[in-house]
Amino acid sequence: MMISEWGENPIISYLADLFPSPAGIVGIGDDCAVIPLDDSSVQLVTTDALIEGIHFIKDQICAYDLGYKTFAVNVSDIAAMGGTPQYAFLSIALPSNTDCIWFKEFAEGMREACKEFSISLLGGDTVGSKSDIFINLTVMGKADIRNIKYRHTALPGDVICVSGPLGDSLAGLLCLQKKMEQTSTVKCLIKAHQCPQIGLEKGLFFGSQSGVHAMMDLSDGLDTDLRRILKASNCGAVIDLAQIPISKELAEIGKMNDWNTTRLAVTGGEDYRLLVTIATDAFEEIRRAFHERFTEMLFPIGIITNQPDRLTYTLNGKPIEIQISPYQHF
Amino acid sequence: MMISEWGENPIISYLADLFPSPAGIVGIGDDCAVIPLDDSSVQLVTTDALIEGIHFIKDQICAYDLGYKTFAVNVSDIAAMGGTPQYAFLSIALPSNTDCIWFKEFAEGMREACKEFSISLLGGDTVGSKSDIFINLTVMGKADIRNIKYRHTALPGDVICVSGPLGDSLAGLLCLQKKMEQTSTVKCLIKAHQCPQIGLEKGLFFGSQSGVHAMMDLSDGLDTDLRRILKASNCGAVIDLAQIPISKELAEIGKMNDWNTTRLAVTGGEDYRLLVTIATDAFEEIRRAFHERFTEMLFPIGIITNQPDRLTYTLNGKPIEIQISPYQHF
Repeated sequence: MMISEWGENPIISYLADLFPSPAGIVGIGDDCAVIPLDDSSVQLVTTDALIEGIHFIKDQICAYDLGYKTFAVNVSDIAAMGGTPQYAFLSIALPSNTDCIWFKEFAEGMREACKEFSISLLGGDTVGSKSDIFINLTVMGKADIRNIKYRHTALPGDVICVSGPLGDSLAGLLCLQKKMEQTSTVKCLIKAHQCPQIGLEKGLFFGSQSGVHAMMDLSDGLDTDLRRILKASNCGAVIDLAQIPISKELAEIGKMNDWNTTRLAVTGGEDYRLLVTIATDAFEEIRRAFHERFTEMLFPIGIITNQPDRLTYTLNGKPIEIQISPYQHF
Repeated sequence: MMISEWGENPIISYLADLFPSPAGIVGIGDDCAVIPLDDSSVQLVTTDALIEGIHFIKDQICAYDLGYKTFAVNVSDIAAMGGTPQYAFLSIALPSNTDCIWFKEFAEGMREACKEFSISLLGGDTVGSKSDIFINLTVMGKADIRNIKYRHTALPGDVICVSGPLGDSLAGLLCLQKKMEQTSTVKCLIKAHQCPQIGLEKGLFFGSQSGVHAMMDLSDGLDTDLRRILKASNCGAVIDLAQIPISKELAEIGKMNDWNTTRLAVTGGEDYRLLVTIATDAFEEIRRAFHERFTEMLFPIGIITNQPDRLTYTLNGKPIEIQISPYQHF
């Protein structure tokens, strides 16, 4: 069997079985590993790779944005646990003919992210590669032990919410691939893909709310990522497609190009919004507080059910089948 | 300018300037980053990438050994600071046609290393790649704050020592490249290249000796790595080529093939021996204790001098020029 047939989730399960975590430590399977530091705080660790030809096309993203994004995708994992990033370690493999200017711009993008997220880059490894660029960043952070949020703690009845519109990143990628004219709207979608906004403060906000039961960041798409929460929490979910937030930019470009924007929003990866499940009785208060804090909407999109692994989409109150082609890692 | 002309050391200096470490933290430039944990202990973090076609040829190393080596090269960095490894985070990018059996053998090699070095694999990222395998491991460890050893603490007069024979790893690589008949001696050298022995206990031993001033692991070759200690410590060194230890296996194969074994030993990378500088008045006692503890020799090969960056090789008491072609990262 080839690795592409095996698939990412089975591989992660295989590794999780082979490498059990020591008592008191949360290892393979959530957005970050969680290591107790003392009575009141924990250390969070996450690592993410960006591979040329898989995660980015060198000609389609400037080095500065790629440097920023390398940090952003990792910071999102820290945010998704309710923590704060602190330290980073970069490994980068570059073909020998890489222009130094490219590397310096990449470093400037990293520096911008370090500044924005208060991260210190403390080490790494710079090596050669035959032809493709490989980037890996490990980010360490910390969190208040009372504020950590996991994937496995969703409960039946919880309101499922997302912290912002979905599908912009995939739409931006499509705009690039189709070489669309770069109107301000198209640019906005491309920016969502290349330079994603990370909800670090929102993650801290959700972390501080005891009514928030489960949380993760949307990196592989709502359908794929919600199923991870369902599996970890042994629950099901009903999602109302009409409630899935779509940005006005995606709505506009989607209409022009006859795209199924709902499907883009459900399957598109790399949005880096936060997906949370909130106790019913806490929902209204948290929604109000969220709006007060960020002057943005919190979007309820469905309900957690007690039917393990069952994810149902509805439209106008009726179940509906939608064609899902989730992101394939291999 | 291309990255290959810039070179690894200038790139690291560039990044170290661009990303200064916060007060109290040792960042870019040593074997590990050092982060204070409490009054008596520090956290160590290191990361190392292994790239197909650069660090390994897939057909020339079995997946199990590669899995083991991925850990070994990182554990060596922890050992070189006088610490103990604890946790690891793996990123691996695999072409979609990678056989699952290959991956499972790779995982078994990692598990063997985790067992040997008491490490828990706590997370990572498994992704696709277009054609080459890319592996990155981040290892976190800890050390007693009194036992940390750095590169920048060598002092003039120190005895420079290595913890074992040098050059076996490069010799093993040459045996593979020349497709030599796999006699038991050749196998021994190939094993040194593919499955390096890591001096974790030796690192802890040196860490506990106040007479040991500076320490690092030999990953890029004695010449390259010693120059790093000299630069960091603002010192020079005189190395007596006659004292550089050569294994009996390298001596035998070197004689058969008319290799310059001394040059192999001085320039060959990936030996993962420890390079230490020891206060003159502590040297005899440490050498005795080392032999008592490990029933192995500690090899003095030269002296630290007060001439910044000046590295002199001698033979029979006279300076000698040797042709050095250090490992090029790009």
